Parts: sequence; C-alpha cells; structure tokens
Amino acid sequence: METKEIGTFLRQRGLTVSTAESCTGGMIASMITRVAGSSDYFKGAVVSYAIEVKERVLGVDVSDGVVSESTARQMAEGVARVLLTDCAVATTGVAGPGGGTAETPVGTVCVAALVGTHVTTRTFHFEGDRESVILQAADAALGLLWEEMQNIL
Amino acid sequence: METKEIGTFLRQRGLTVSTAESCTGGMIASMITRVAGSSDYFKGAVVSYAIEVKERVLGVDVSDGVVSESTARQMAEGVARVLLTDCAVATTGVAGPGGGTAETPVGTVCVAALVGTHVTTRTFHFEGDRESVILQAADAALGLLWEEMQNIL
Repeated sequence: METKEIGTFLRQRGLTVSTAESCTGGMIASMITRVAGSSDYFKGAVVSYAIEVKERVLGVDVSDGVVSESTARQMAEGVARVLLTDCAVATTGVAGPGGGTAETPVGTVCVAALVGTHVTTRTFHFEGDRESVILQAADAALGLLWEEMQNIL
Repeated sequence: METKEIGTFLRQRGLTVSTAESCTGGMIASMITRVAGSSDYFKGAVVSYAIEVKERVLGVDVSDGVVSESTARQMAEGVARVLLTDCAVATTGVAGPGGGTAETPVGTVCVAALVGTHVTTRTFHFEGDRESVILQAADAALGLLWEEMQNIL
C-alpha cells in the first residue's frame, strides 16, 4: 500500500486526489483516509455501485461494458471533474462470488489512474474470494496511481 | 456489524441504501459491499471529505458547523436525493489525531440515518486512536440505521 507515499507526494505539490469505485466499494477511499492528515489532499469519492450512479453522477457511457477500461477511464475522468481534483483512481470489476460471465469472469477488474489530463488504464484477473479480489483491486489501483504520479509529476 | 441483517431486510422489501461519509472515509460503504450480493440494495456512496464536496455535491449548508447533527442530516438527505435511495446513513466528525477543538474534540462524531422521509441524528464521543474512532463511528452509524429501519419499516 502506497497511501502514505502518495499522500506525501501530493501534499508537497499542493495537489488533490479522489476515487471512483465500483467493485472496491469504498475500500480505496478508506485506505487513503486511514492516514492522518489525508484531508490535506483527499477531497472525496463516489462509490458508483449501481450503473445508474456511474451514468448520472459520473457521466459514464457504459456501452463498452460496465467492466471495461473505457468505463474505468470515464469514471476517473468523471470523479476528477465532479470533485475538482488533480488526480483520480477508478475501479470496475467482478468481486464475486456471483456476477461472473464467460467474457468477464469473477476476478476481472479494470482500473484507471488519472494524473492531470493523462489517464492510464489496465485490466487485471485476480484469484481468490470476494474480500481478496477487493483488496487486490484496491492495491492495484493505488499502485497504478503511484506509478503514474511518479512518471508524470 | 449489522450489514448482513440490513441487507436481508432491504432485499426482502425491494429497498435501497446509500452512504454519505466524512470522517469514516468510505469505511461504511466498504463494510456494506463486503457482503456478497450487496449490489441488490446498495447503490453507492459519496465520501465528502472536503467541505466543498459536502456543499456542491450533497447540497449541504454547513453554517451550523461541519461537525453537527444538522450537517449529518443534510448529508443523509443529500445522498438519498442524488443517488435516489430509500435509506441513507451519514457521518461527520473528527477522527484525529489532529483537527480537534475545545468545542469539537477528537472523537466527536455526528451520525444520521434516513429511512424514507424520516431522519434521526445522534452525536457520539468516542475514545481511542484514529482507526478506532473510524470503526466505532461506522458501527454506530450502521447501528442507528438498523434501529431506525426496524422502527419505521
């Protein structure tokens, strides 16, 4: 977990972050806010569990599939726009045990990291039970954000 | 933690829930979505860590104080309105170790539970470190929601 490093990096630069979470259900926001002083750089999160919340609150067009890199990208862009943050991270996937399909089996998670105007997306296939998939997805999303922050800022 | 009981109760009645979280930072949403099948009744959350997110996204007037029962009530009403849910729960408080004042010391948490058109609020004073205050606040909020659901529905 890079939450302390991410926080220090953002605070030093006067930048802010938000999260848009589907399958992680608020876990990433919870991990970020576990760090004392995170209110200096964390503005908030939209947990868009229902498709209509992705569409209506974050302005996502899910026509490429709810679990897709396109949706993850639009969720990150949406939350950065709605909460007015410099950086954002987003997750959409199938934590299981239900909800899997042949095309999108349980453990499939798409994540996006937004840094300024740059957005990077990635698709993961995690093994394990629901709690394990959620934790791995949260770690992967924070890892991608940290990587992109170091690349771009 | 009443997350399973709350879920079963909501599913049986075809009702939905959302959370608006300040000091709990997404912990309540994370606890609710740890339960498999929670997408049947959990629509999402707004983690409004920054005051401007409380104001702009949830429509809260914080003039009674950011940590107040009035703010908690408006957060619950705001998230139920924005995410279109039947029930909602909200938290605003000081998890610490910083941020405390004489009037609002570390550990002060106001919670609200909305069930239909009925909103109940309560103020708690928790002891312990940051993580402990967050967990106690999340439990208290879910407990109040569960109590009100049983009273009203």
